[in-house]
Amino acid sequence: MPRVSLFLAAAVLSAGWPGYTQNLTEQYRPAADRLIDAALADNEGYERLTYLCDRIGNRLSGSPSLQQAIQWSAEQMKAAGLSNVRIIPVKVPHWVRGAESARMLAPADRPLHMLGLGMSVGTPSGGITAEVVPVATFEELEKLGREKIQGKIVLYNYQFRGYGPARVFRSAGPSRAAALGAVATLVRSATPLAMQIPHTGELEYDEAQPRIPAAAVSPEDAAMLARLAGSGVAVKVRLEMGAHMEPDADSGDVIGEIPGRAHPEEVVVIGGHIDSWDVGQGAQDDGAPSLACLQALALMKKLGLQPARTLRVAFWVNEENGARGGAAYRQFVDGELAKQVAALETDGGAEAPRGFGAGVDAASQEMLKQIARLLDRVGAGEMTPGGGGTDIEPLVRDGVPGISLRTVGTHYFDWHHTEADTLDKVDPEDFRKNVAALAVMAYAIADMPARLVAVRGGRRGGQ
Amino acid sequence: MPRVSLFLAAAVLSAGWPGYTQNLTEQYRPAADRLIDAALADNEGYERLTYLCDRIGNRLSGSPSLQQAIQWSAEQMKAAGLSNVRIIPVKVPHWVRGAESARMLAPADRPLHMLGLGMSVGTPSGGITAEVVPVATFEELEKLGREKIQGKIVLYNYQFRGYGPARVFRSAGPSRAAALGAVATLVRSATPLAMQIPHTGELEYDEAQPRIPAAAVSPEDAAMLARLAGSGVAVKVRLEMGAHMEPDADSGDVIGEIPGRAHPEEVVVIGGHIDSWDVGQGAQDDGAPSLACLQALALMKKLGLQPARTLRVAFWVNEENGARGGAAYRQFVDGELAKQVAALETDGGAEAPRGFGAGVDAASQEMLKQIARLLDRVGAGEMTPGGGGTDIEPLVRDGVPGISLRTVGTHYFDWHHTEADTLDKVDPEDFRKNVAALAVMAYAIADMPARLVAVRGGRRGGQ
Repeated sequence: MPRVSLFLAAAVLSAGWPGYTQNLTEQYRPAADRLIDAALADNEGYERLTYLCDRIGNRLSGSPSLQQAIQWSAEQMKAAGLSNVRIIPVKVPHWVRGAESARMLAPADRPLHMLGLGMSVGTPSGGITAEVVPVATFEELEKLGREKIQGKIVLYNYQFRGYGPARVFRSAGPSRAAALGAVATLVRSATPLAMQIPHTGELEYDEAQPRIPAAAVSPEDAAMLARLAGSGVAVKVRLEMGAHMEPDADSGDVIGEIPGRAHPEEVVVIGGHIDSWDVGQGAQDDGAPSLACLQALALMKKLGLQPARTLRVAFWVNEENGARGGAAYRQFVDGELAKQVAALETDGGAEAPRGFGAGVDAASQEMLKQIARLLDRVGAGEMTPGGGGTDIEPLVRDGVPGISLRTVGTHYFDWHHTEADTLDKVDPEDFRKNVAALAVMAYAIADMPARLVAVRGGRRGGQ
Repeated sequence: MPRVSLFLAAAVLSAGWPGYTQNLTEQYRPAADRLIDAALADNEGYERLTYLCDRIGNRLSGSPSLQQAIQWSAEQMKAAGLSNVRIIPVKVPHWVRGAESARMLAPADRPLHMLGLGMSVGTPSGGITAEVVPVATFEELEKLGREKIQGKIVLYNYQFRGYGPARVFRSAGPSRAAALGAVATLVRSATPLAMQIPHTGELEYDEAQPRIPAAAVSPEDAAMLARLAGSGVAVKVRLEMGAHMEPDADSGDVIGEIPGRAHPEEVVVIGGHIDSWDVGQGAQDDGAPSLACLQALALMKKLGLQPARTLRVAFWVNEENGARGGAAYRQFVDGELAKQVAALETDGGAEAPRGFGAGVDAASQEMLKQIARLLDRVGAGEMTPGGGGTDIEPLVRDGVPGISLRTVGTHYFDWHHTEADTLDKVDPEDFRKNVAALAVMAYAIADMPARLVAVRGGRRGGQ
């Protein structure tokens, strides 16, 4: 049997590598090379991305442009020849930014560069005017205590040491300040690059605390306010935000499939999120990654490659401010959870891909490494532990092996959640490599004899 | 005599270098080392810069903040112990930006990121709405001709290949489009970095053409408009600008001196411009360079170093939109032109200094190289030809040797003429090195026995 002899050949070749066999590498090399060649020559994927960015633009949950993007996505999936194209209905929170501004009134009168945080409440009409108290850490905030915080606007002007730690000030900061009597919160934008543009993002209110309005300010403005306050002068700011919630809106996840050749009931899902913040074009977050997933399947259709299992592309909705799309998708596959073979999410931009992270056991990692090797051609051959993602988290929590694409991430957080997340930030060559990496990894996982075994969550993926 | 023996020692030391003597190097090493040590330990200069940026802010000609900056500068010069601190009266053009916005109306409705160009006329109330015609070069514009340009908004979406070539589209572009009947002009911002912020700057109307309003747009928006128009759809934009001129305003150049020990009538002037655009803080352009010049003299005063000739610091006004400060200064020294020994301008930011450019003859270059060698300690030992500057141009044109400080310029045009030109962009250590470089170069030129000889302009600097 060809597969056995390939296996034996691989075993012989790899005799010097204890525990290593390269059977999957050789098994999938022909298909991988065809997919990579097609991806590197493809323009259609980037053209789709161009349309999404330039013609539809950003697409916050509840916005007309998101509805337009969803309809357009379904059309694109059909045009790519996918089967069972559907929109899974999802009710999404509908946060509206409204008119907003912030202004330093003392010691000098100057406009600030701000963006309200997603899901923030608004201010009363006329705004909130108060003195600014800067803190660099939560410890500093606690130490100041209610006496110094009551009635003030707390400014989190932390040292940026990566998005993870920075994000905590944005998400938890408003309620922690409110707990001490603050009337509003300003947060340094979560970015390594200071170019006077604010980065929005979601806050998470603690139900036990009063909801106070909160906005991101540019790194420059955060630094200036902190410098001035630190020099001993009273710094007064007026914050005006028309932010408010409207009733939940109708929306949906968009899915389309290449039905499995041998096991159509078993599903590998790959995707990204179709919603974005209401600034920029949502190009890197998450337009390009989502469309790279679609294009991976589109190329398989063009090449006549049909994996043994069903390969499904999903454009989840509402990743940014509610994660309702991921939850709805989990409900959609309820009762067929054992048939969910793997879930791959890409939500870290489409800069040059390095490889993948996967939350799987050692034997499964070894299999994925054999596949990833085929991506050395495009610099995407790295396999690491990990593999989460907001949209696939409900699946991963229930034991579905989770995989995520990883890129070099050189500038991702320069652009993230800003007006600057636009098409020009997506290098066409990098985009093509993302398509190549996603196509090869998804095809092999959906086709290979064995199934991956997850290492986290309650259920273990079976063989 | 000490000077002679130093000269002989230098001649001996440099015997292996044909035509090279290092007399100035050794002559000024002790003073240079004291100045550099003091500059590298100095905090006062950066504190002054902090006040200018945070408390006074940007300072366009005609604005109250410029008047505040001028008064404050004179106070700072006095506080530094300088003599003959004066404000030379200058009438400056008073351009006012007014409210402004640009919006793409078709094929999608989207706000654009714009800043009106300095000295532009405004639009009628309600704005100008027209189709956008993108061009990448003037040749392309001419080829389209009146038939295709009449009634349209011309967008210059050129390839950025350095500030010099880019600037031409900003300065000459509006009138060249107007000559073919365009009703307004949009210009890609003159920057290598696309971070969705527009860069303003001055335009220059051709008196023979109708004056049409002109604005810079972010690189992203320029690219988007050009992509859309290039794809064949009609792109419609509404431009609204309240820009207008008010009567010339009272302003002034600020100067202060260390009078010469031996030849007080001979003057070396060093400086930068105190005005800025009406965005950001004018930190790199030109606050930090100007204050570095002041601090260079402040340190000489602290160290008791008094050069043979008078060393004057000048904060010229209106460099950005009229160059009236440089012209007024030229008038101020009229009749004493032969006593103007050298003019040094620094208007390229205060990133790490590399050295100086000078428009002088070969013998003078050699002298400057000997001085520059003393700045190798701070990485600023490079001497090259050049040496211009808007404010010193009227002096240089009349034969005064012109010198300019040069920096690495790594990010200067990322920030130039934007909201992002703020204090945080000025690295304190780099700023101190600028002070060191300026102090050593200015002191030595004002003290050395010989005079520099200019290579351009009508008059030659004497011995």
